[in-house]
Amino acid sequence: MIAIDTLIHARWIIPVEPDNTVLDYHSIAIHEGRIIALLPTTQATATYHADTTFSLNEHALIPGLVNAHTHAAMSLFRGLADDLPLMEWLNNHIWPAEGAWVNAEFAHHGTQLAIAEMLRGGTTCFNDMYFFPDETARTAEECQMRATVGLIVIDFPTVWAASADEYINKGLALHDRYRSHPLIHTAFAPHAPYTVSNAPLDKIRTYADEMDIPIHMHIHETVDEINQGLTHYKTRPLQRLGQLGLLSPHLIGVHMTQLADDEINRYAATGAHVVHCPESNLKLASGFCPVQKLVNAGVNVAIGTDGAASNNDLDMFSEMRTAALLGKAVANDASAVSAATVLRMATLNGARALGWDEDIGSLLPGKAADITAVHLGGIETQPIYHPVSQLAYATGRDKVTDVWVAGKHLLKNRVLTTLDERAILKNAQTWREKIKKYD
Amino acid sequence: MIAIDTLIHARWIIPVEPDNTVLDYHSIAIHEGRIIALLPTTQATATYHADTTFSLNEHALIPGLVNAHTHAAMSLFRGLADDLPLMEWLNNHIWPAEGAWVNAEFAHHGTQLAIAEMLRGGTTCFNDMYFFPDETARTAEECQMRATVGLIVIDFPTVWAASADEYINKGLALHDRYRSHPLIHTAFAPHAPYTVSNAPLDKIRTYADEMDIPIHMHIHETVDEINQGLTHYKTRPLQRLGQLGLLSPHLIGVHMTQLADDEINRYAATGAHVVHCPESNLKLASGFCPVQKLVNAGVNVAIGTDGAASNNDLDMFSEMRTAALLGKAVANDASAVSAATVLRMATLNGARALGWDEDIGSLLPGKAADITAVHLGGIETQPIYHPVSQLAYATGRDKVTDVWVAGKHLLKNRVLTTLDERAILKNAQTWREKIKKYD
Repeated sequence: MIAIDTLIHARWIIPVEPDNTVLDYHSIAIHEGRIIALLPTTQATATYHADTTFSLNEHALIPGLVNAHTHAAMSLFRGLADDLPLMEWLNNHIWPAEGAWVNAEFAHHGTQLAIAEMLRGGTTCFNDMYFFPDETARTAEECQMRATVGLIVIDFPTVWAASADEYINKGLALHDRYRSHPLIHTAFAPHAPYTVSNAPLDKIRTYADEMDIPIHMHIHETVDEINQGLTHYKTRPLQRLGQLGLLSPHLIGVHMTQLADDEINRYAATGAHVVHCPESNLKLASGFCPVQKLVNAGVNVAIGTDGAASNNDLDMFSEMRTAALLGKAVANDASAVSAATVLRMATLNGARALGWDEDIGSLLPGKAADITAVHLGGIETQPIYHPVSQLAYATGRDKVTDVWVAGKHLLKNRVLTTLDERAILKNAQTWREKIKKYD
Repeated sequence: MIAIDTLIHARWIIPVEPDNTVLDYHSIAIHEGRIIALLPTTQATATYHADTTFSLNEHALIPGLVNAHTHAAMSLFRGLADDLPLMEWLNNHIWPAEGAWVNAEFAHHGTQLAIAEMLRGGTTCFNDMYFFPDETARTAEECQMRATVGLIVIDFPTVWAASADEYINKGLALHDRYRSHPLIHTAFAPHAPYTVSNAPLDKIRTYADEMDIPIHMHIHETVDEINQGLTHYKTRPLQRLGQLGLLSPHLIGVHMTQLADDEINRYAATGAHVVHCPESNLKLASGFCPVQKLVNAGVNVAIGTDGAASNNDLDMFSEMRTAALLGKAVANDASAVSAATVLRMATLNGARALGWDEDIGSLLPGKAADITAVHLGGIETQPIYHPVSQLAYATGRDKVTDVWVAGKHLLKNRVLTTLDERAILKNAQTWREKIKKYD
């Protein structure tokens, strides 16, 4: 018998890699935070002696979900303003609220609320973009959540920095602080083509190449953005980014609802990634991302929830489902964007976009033990003909029972082990009282 | 002190009628299955002495949700076949499975599974269309669920009836059996324009007028249906239904993804209703229902989940959310199809479509006590700026704690009181074993 830390027996294991694999009555062996084997349960019990054993007899184990685009701290603005035209929403609600309230404590409390929600929904890694990324990083580290923290850059001054150079320098300092941290990575996060000018983008490209980290950016989100680009730069934003040398495997382009067919092919050839945020795109009436066309062209497409101010949740199960449903309607083909495709988008493709797929995104021996257990034995998910179909089309995030990040049990039968749920709720209510008065 | 059956104190009551009303710290007084008053909790405790009192301090009370279009028994086919082109899905999976398996017992067990799912998700009334409607009615009656049971009519023979006349006669007999039943109503349910010919439609119109019951029909679901109508009848299906005299306040037209602007205006003028099934329309790539245009034209639009074979759930919270999100994108306007609009569509508008709005659909004194309690105190729904926004955009059906139908407590802190959950799960698994072999 081999002594190991943890052994999880499950009714199904869906490793995502290799494709189209559903392992019945299998187990995952975990030691020192890493997956060491996937094998039939009968074999596992004969091979390993584990300090802790879990028997999840009505559950599917999947790779922890990767939320490839969010603004975690904005969870404190959840539902502050809905059903408004985009510019009224931004100008009269979100930007004034940010101006009035965002500070280090807001970022800390907001990120705690967001991580609590994400873990309870099976998400083990998030790619963030917001002010006070130092707080985002510290908060994730404290509760042992995995994150790629965005080194935000924007042309105009905010409470976080006064100039593009200050944003970049603060970002570089933060990157240094977390260099080779096992759970916290960084990415440059220039906000969008219409809010970041050429000089800082040029610097960012140079640094990102040197440091070998991603560049995370909202791109082609709305028709307005395209029109502004044509007015100010005489080009469509993607073309301008290409001229600046930004289209490369480092680039994570978020939203991408406005794409001509030739742009899709050119984007694919650069090796850049797309993060699809279907619910945010719908809610803000931004347009429809042509997901199946991107997939067909060979683009790596991941999924993100966007921030809770424009979604209004951080629910990757709902986002997978919406991506699959909407993808079919947009492609006018009921066989487009399948259940297996969205599960891969929400796991391995997210990991790839973040340059983290050697470590996470699928359940392969050698990878970190980032695992989500989903109970499929209840009324809502019966009968089960195909577990992957249930995960994409019938399961809600409330069916997530347990979550491990790097082998650490962060959600234990729906209870958070590294976050204080009561304190998080209390802080959310305190912020609400303050912000509500203003709104 | 006035003696009554039940008093429910709640943090919020959202009665849906009148519009845009959120009552803070209010209570509902219930006696003999009906709402007798809504009043501030302080007043309620001074006025009423109730046999049973509930204090739901972090909850919103809303009218029980009305699922205005489903095929309940098909829940046993949940996830049997997904991600397939429509005709392959129907011809090679659903119709053969129906031919092989649908019988009275299937309808009974499938409807039990569906009702269990619906009650656990806050739905208190469903509008059904399926074979063996006698079993649907019996099953709903047994567990005291509210339903409008469809008297299905289709040109071709099935295990339920051999000819259009037999379908109609069996329907009339069923209608007689439930005449003036408090919980079970009936509606004619001719399947669709392409499956029911003029002679039976003519009879149905005559009977429906006499009996004053609705006509529930799939209409303009796909482009194919329009093309078939043009080929066989030389008209678009809606025009043909108009010629047959079917467009009236009795008509419940389901799906309606294919509508020209002038058709919308003409439909509105007839007083006929629309049931929007956004998730089914997306999943089968049927097209986009122009919801905001219908609302603007004055059409009463309700919401349905469709059957679990094509959705794959009976989740009205998810359906409300998708209706709101998709409605904005389709209208190209982020202020279209608001949170309050979808809540009304999922409650009062559904009741109206079924001709049942004098009794249900809103929390008004005199109406039946069909009530759903939703817990909003958890991580996923905090902070709360606007409870209606949380219900539409952040709440999952798992937050439903309690459900009453006609004052009877059918879901009690998430436990079903009139259905045996274990037996339902066992039956679902037995059917799965049989059907799986065939598939």
